[in-house]
Amino acid sequence: MDLLKEKIKESGKVIGSNILKVDSFINHQIDTKLLDEIGRFIASKFQNVTKIVTIETSGIAFACAVARYYDFAPVVFAKKTKSATTSNDVYETSVYSFTKKQTFNVSIDKRFLNDYDRILIIDDFLADGNAALGLIDLVNQAKASVVGIGVVIEKGFQPGHQKLVDLGYHVEACATVLKLENGSVTLK
Amino acid sequence: MDLLKEKIKESGKVIGSNILKVDSFINHQIDTKLLDEIGRFIASKFQNVTKIVTIETSGIAFACAVARYYDFAPVVFAKKTKSATTSNDVYETSVYSFTKKQTFNVSIDKRFLNDYDRILIIDDFLADGNAALGLIDLVNQAKASVVGIGVVIEKGFQPGHQKLVDLGYHVEACATVLKLENGSVTLK
Repeated sequence: MDLLKEKIKESGKVIGSNILKVDSFINHQIDTKLLDEIGRFIASKFQNVTKIVTIETSGIAFACAVARYYDFAPVVFAKKTKSATTSNDVYETSVYSFTKKQTFNVSIDKRFLNDYDRILIIDDFLADGNAALGLIDLVNQAKASVVGIGVVIEKGFQPGHQKLVDLGYHVEACATVLKLENGSVTLK
Repeated sequence: MDLLKEKIKESGKVIGSNILKVDSFINHQIDTKLLDEIGRFIASKFQNVTKIVTIETSGIAFACAVARYYDFAPVVFAKKTKSATTSNDVYETSVYSFTKKQTFNVSIDKRFLNDYDRILIIDDFLADGNAALGLIDLVNQAKASVVGIGVVIEKGFQPGHQKLVDLGYHVEACATVLKLENGSVTLK
């Protein structure tokens, strides 16, 4: 997706050989025109989706942008923390966060995943694949179907994409990072 | 806003005299058609906005929905936690969360708030006004202007709205809850 690739080249910051910082347009400040284009692009890759599932925080904007292109399908985001209104009747799993270097539980209220749902999983980054695998686990617990996994940026040098493909899932990324080196990014 | 009021009456759950649970369409599962209508409604109330500011997690979808109606203005969300890519050069303040019953620090990277920005603050709920006051503090630290505060649901029986109006801010809510009692909600 050319608009995103240009933006990464122009505004992404490479930190070491592992971190691509895109907080000026993806996950702290959001370029909402780009957001809409990303939604359209991902939706062009998957058919027959009834619901979008993502994980808080950074996936939410993209899940909603995608949902517009499925006739405003509902979005459900897996929650990391409990609040005064959280139900105890949830599907729950644990996910290791690459950027935060910690494991946390995520959950979705059982009311929001049904066995007839055809789920598109959305996230901002795909690296080791842990967040996506956690969301797939939640969808499987509900006996719903996973149509595929759509991500904004994937790190092609980490195993997430291949792990998901090996499990039989359809994975699409708007941009694939091949290498982060000497402060510059190589995109596919 | 009639569509939201109907949805609250139909799907909102009242817990005690203080909690209106709207997780089936606002802050866990999101009704994205309603989301778009809320964005359009809030944007009809404020002019000359250059940037939308909200707080993670539940404000993000609404901030992005509003942004579409200001020619895809950028959205910035204040962050509650630090990650491997968080800058130290931030505006920071503390906010007490009514639903989570705890105080946490929130921050925005200084690069994303400029003194020429005309900011619309968005959140899902307005109750005591603590989140909005925290965001106003961040905007003030950057010497940017607050155009107003737009929220999805306000609790008219809590002091947030009046506090903000007394400080001279323009506040708009899509729905105002007057009373939560015996399992039912009274809307303005």
